Amino acid sequence: MKLIECVPNFSEGRRQEVVQEIVGAATAVSGIKLLDQSSDASHNRSVVTFVGTPEAVKQAAFNAAEKAAELIDMEKHSGEHPRIGATDVIPLIPISGVSMEECIALARELGEEIGEKLEIPVYLYEDAALSAERKNLAVVRRGEYEGLKEEIGEPERKPDFGPARLHPNAGATAVSARPPLIAYNINLDTADLKIARKIAGSIRGSSGGYPSIKALGVLIEETGTAQVTINVCNYHHVSLARIFETVKSEAGRHGVGISSSEIVGLLPMEALLDAAAFYLRLHDFHPGQVLEKKLAET
Amino acid sequence: MKLIECVPNFSEGRRQEVVQEIVGAATAVSGIKLLDQSSDASHNRSVVTFVGTPEAVKQAAFNAAEKAAELIDMEKHSGEHPRIGATDVIPLIPISGVSMEECIALARELGEEIGEKLEIPVYLYEDAALSAERKNLAVVRRGEYEGLKEEIGEPERKPDFGPARLHPNAGATAVSARPPLIAYNINLDTADLKIARKIAGSIRGSSGGYPSIKALGVLIEETGTAQVTINVCNYHHVSLARIFETVKSEAGRHGVGISSSEIVGLLPMEALLDAAAFYLRLHDFHPGQVLEKKLAET
Repeated sequence: MKLIECVPNFSEGRRQEVVQEIVGAATAVSGIKLLDQSSDASHNRSVVTFVGTPEAVKQAAFNAAEKAAELIDMEKHSGEHPRIGATDVIPLIPISGVSMEECIALARELGEEIGEKLEIPVYLYEDAALSAERKNLAVVRRGEYEGLKEEIGEPERKPDFGPARLHPNAGATAVSARPPLIAYNINLDTADLKIARKIAGSIRGSSGGYPSIKALGVLIEETGTAQVTINVCNYHHVSLARIFETVKSEAGRHGVGISSSEIVGLLPMEALLDAAAFYLRLHDFHPGQVLEKKLAET
Repeated sequence: MKLIECVPNFSEGRRQEVVQEIVGAATAVSGIKLLDQSSDASHNRSVVTFVGTPEAVKQAAFNAAEKAAELIDMEKHSGEHPRIGATDVIPLIPISGVSMEECIALARELGEEIGEKLEIPVYLYEDAALSAERKNLAVVRRGEYEGLKEEIGEPERKPDFGPARLHPNAGATAVSARPPLIAYNINLDTADLKIARKIAGSIRGSSGGYPSIKALGVLIEETGTAQVTINVCNYHHVSLARIFETVKSEAGRHGVGISSSEIVGLLPMEALLDAAAFYLRLHDFHPGQVLEKKLAET
């Protein structure tokens, strides 16, 4: 079964009745399952997670954006988090049976529909971006709602879809496709925070490690454990097994070992199947050999 | 919905048109879903997996056995894998809404029907066996087709159903009920069959290893690879990771390594999650963290 996850962020984190109406507009679409929602009052922002088939997800995201445009007025919005519109960002994430290419195509269709039918300017970012520069969400959101209002007429700020002026109350929306993110922590058998920090530095992209890895060294006070806390932004580029082995090797250099690791929240089955396949040296394995996956597909 | 999985093994892995006719005889039964089929030329054997309601599965298995008896001649069969008949084994596996007791009753009904209508001697084994000794498939298949042909008249080899003589071309068939089985092969970086045989002997229950493991050493002619071919009869008792590590350790003793391993056919997701958790030393992991599993439950 083709499954896509969608994690839209809305510029409303205080009026729960408004958030519920927006979430309701998405979940009213047949086949959509709500996985999570959380609101932050100081950010004045809500993050919603739902999944479904590509068509259902596109419809649900559109309906939610339409409802947000009806209920949120960006002229009156304030909050700490950067934002350009009522429906600020809509990332689409391929979960199963869907390629990144299909997800990118869907993001562009959704963006075009929001641009034309709702008359909201739309910017594509991350893997769905049409230019290298716009891959970076920070570039798209530069100046936020207020700044974009001034600059949207300039050629370099021209939206990918929709009018070259902000929607009078809903502002603009950024739509993307990206791989699932995995929150993964590795616990060392030491309380030495410096070692965890060195290891984090050796694997993260920002200091010369894997480009799709973000990592920090932290000390877990309760257990006195130094931990490498990791965001895996693209597990197709760097597998959990490779991260584990790199950390193990770097830890060994400091004379320490790995006591355990942990997955925070959810992850796609494939990320763990990849780890099993790596260590068991599986040859010619494909996920369709998993009984539950096979039964779900037939 | 009551669902039983059936994984018959047929003594034909080279003539694909024959395999297709046999599979077609099973899947022609209404409500049967074909999940997998794989043929191995050097074993000269095909493994077919289908699911359905108990009645549909019984009919489909009978039809396939009838077709195999029509198309396969055991007098001309050769292959590396032990076998006693055209339809060598028919295991029935409870998947959902069906108890092991119901599955055992169905296996006995199916065995009786094959014995009486097709005049093929049938042996019940594993959980469906009528004696403790015959729980073990190796006891039922002792001497293979050629040996059984000589001994079938002896009281201890008397079949549970059907005539006390082999079917002239289809030989005999073994029918069982059992928990899901994983067919797992480990390839060594040597062509020395003796080493594969020694390793197989060290892990299998019949020679003092893990009671729920069956294993043989074989030589894969095409690649010149010695292989430990394994049936994991209860992966809750012995995990794939433990098997892999035991084989690796035993192989090391002979100065050889593991080049790859392979899963033949389907396996429950949990068996691979267990392997990932073992190697990544996952702490506090539960299968509900797998997005696809979470989705199936919500």
